[in-house]
Amino acid sequence: MQYGISRDEEDMKWLEPMAIENVKQRIRAVRTELRKKRIDGLILTKPANVTYVTGFLGEDSWAVVTGNAVYLLTDSRYTEQAQKECTGARIVERKGPIAEAAGILLTRLRSVKTAAVEKSISLGLCEILKKNANTRLKAVEDVVEHPRSRKDRAETAAIKAAASIAATAFERLLPAIRAGITESEMAGILDLEIRRQGATNSFETIVAFGANASRPHHQPTQRKLRQRDSILIDFGARYKGYCSDITRSFAFGQPTTAYRHAWEIVKRAQAAAIQAARAGVDLTAIDAAPRDVIRESGLPVYGHGTGHGVGLEIHETPFLKEDAKGRLETGQIITIEPGIYIPGKLGVRIEDDILITETGCKILTGRCPRWLVLQR
Amino acid sequence: MQYGISRDEEDMKWLEPMAIENVKQRIRAVRTELRKKRIDGLILTKPANVTYVTGFLGEDSWAVVTGNAVYLLTDSRYTEQAQKECTGARIVERKGPIAEAAGILLTRLRSVKTAAVEKSISLGLCEILKKNANTRLKAVEDVVEHPRSRKDRAETAAIKAAASIAATAFERLLPAIRAGITESEMAGILDLEIRRQGATNSFETIVAFGANASRPHHQPTQRKLRQRDSILIDFGARYKGYCSDITRSFAFGQPTTAYRHAWEIVKRAQAAAIQAARAGVDLTAIDAAPRDVIRESGLPVYGHGTGHGVGLEIHETPFLKEDAKGRLETGQIITIEPGIYIPGKLGVRIEDDILITETGCKILTGRCPRWLVLQR
Repeated sequence: MQYGISRDEEDMKWLEPMAIENVKQRIRAVRTELRKKRIDGLILTKPANVTYVTGFLGEDSWAVVTGNAVYLLTDSRYTEQAQKECTGARIVERKGPIAEAAGILLTRLRSVKTAAVEKSISLGLCEILKKNANTRLKAVEDVVEHPRSRKDRAETAAIKAAASIAATAFERLLPAIRAGITESEMAGILDLEIRRQGATNSFETIVAFGANASRPHHQPTQRKLRQRDSILIDFGARYKGYCSDITRSFAFGQPTTAYRHAWEIVKRAQAAAIQAARAGVDLTAIDAAPRDVIRESGLPVYGHGTGHGVGLEIHETPFLKEDAKGRLETGQIITIEPGIYIPGKLGVRIEDDILITETGCKILTGRCPRWLVLQR
Repeated sequence: MQYGISRDEEDMKWLEPMAIENVKQRIRAVRTELRKKRIDGLILTKPANVTYVTGFLGEDSWAVVTGNAVYLLTDSRYTEQAQKECTGARIVERKGPIAEAAGILLTRLRSVKTAAVEKSISLGLCEILKKNANTRLKAVEDVVEHPRSRKDRAETAAIKAAASIAATAFERLLPAIRAGITESEMAGILDLEIRRQGATNSFETIVAFGANASRPHHQPTQRKLRQRDSILIDFGARYKGYCSDITRSFAFGQPTTAYRHAWEIVKRAQAAAIQAARAGVDLTAIDAAPRDVIRESGLPVYGHGTGHGVGLEIHETPFLKEDAKGRLETGQIITIEPGIYIPGKLGVRIEDDILITETGCKILTGRCPRWLVLQR
């Protein structure tokens, strides 16, 4: 096992999401949570949490946070990348399996008597960890997820950039939308336009024509676009590790009366949620606002949540749903995405990403056009 | 909780990977494993294992296999899809959290006294499952993974189709490879050509120019292609749930002497592994064959495994690595992917998918061209 400290300080620019000052502030927040729970060390296994405390964007790596250090446990494939990306973490290059290496590291850290492990760890890995660590282990959740939900300036900047890239890709896709294009091809062109800007998809793009849109999790098929069809596209970009998430629904040619009606209701429902969104409001209240609008219209109320946090993960704390606990907080970035789904007939969903501010909220995806009919 | 049995028998065509006869045969193999372990019920939480025993290709769903039935535990978003795809499984539509619903289902299945849960389940979900199940729980691994490694005719046909789609996408990409294209754009065009054939990526496409290829897990960047550069592309398609996995390395214009030399050695190393691959041979022997060729050349030996099984998952049993246990078996489909990596200088990897037959092996990705220099 080798120890080494990242020294690539020239890469640490202020306002970069992984700049050292940002990461330090995050670790302070995590340590506060640890002290509350009387835990000396925290083993992070979820990739987004590892990135959050180390800056590392690669895979197959864990982090350990103690009272006075942060370790990144990685392997030789990632050492070079870790030296570039890690802002302050000590890089430990493992040889054996990761859970074994983490156990050995914990045992060496004599100040750590009680360590916490995330509940998302698998039974199998936890077993190996226990076997190799001479430390009391405690299962925890949300130690990092909650601090992570309040974005700092640099994180907000990265999500804004990811939103802007997605909006540009959408605009560049428009000329390709013609009768005969398949759902799959339309998804592929959108993805290519995200790639052309040096980003990747934040999740697998959904394109659904006509009645296919009534399934919120439809996967693109070889179904061809016809005149007077409708289109739903749910997509996003990942930039510097951070995600955006947008849905647009529109008619290709003259919409049917039913489609126009559903679209207007969804638009109004979304506006109601955005209007209600401000720090201190119950998550359930934001979840309920658009449902009330749809219920009053007599159309079916959607079965999914009204929205979710977005950041290093595409779905993260807070979750806006009927049984949510807690309130919106300043700095959180969430999606608002009500929909109307009539099986065999139509599906409409409109989704934007908003930042919760001191006084209300700010739409980060406003640059992505939102019209009922595709203009030719 | 609603119970219903899928009745869409017209969709169950022989030779479709999820045809009922294929799935029945797989369940028989899984039940044999269960009897050996004295287990009455098996809870499957890994998506590939759920697909394997039910035919279901959606997400967020678990399966339960007992001595006389198979259940798919899903939610309202997927009920329609499950009714189409599930060949024989009873569809249980859950309302609450999945681990809670699985616990309640287990308790209702009175014949199940001891149930097994996969070691890949998280601590958190296992806790909820335990709280709700009135059943003894036992953690197991590889109950489904090992039967899954031996592909039936229909699975082999699906992987062949996925290989053919990837090869066609690669051919269609070639005219776009010109000086000035970025790694990201090249990845995006390849992905689009996979989409155009109604398939998706089996994993995130890797494109690396020049020295970037020395990192086996390089992520595409805005780096532009120059004359006399070299290119590494690692990609695959997923079709009807099944994956292909191909790597090609080649020079853009006249290769340097060092590149040509490394390429020839990798080609020879790969041929040595393919030559050695037949049923009954130790996995470690296949892993070692290409390493020996590279070691003899004096060039550095790669740090990753020589290959892995490919199927419903992009990486699955068997794994060809130095500490592997077991032998190759007829019907397994594996990748063979030796490489040479010289940091700051070059990277070459050549990867094909092969089927282990009674008498040797068969290359499934042979249609994808493999030359040293991109022909213009």
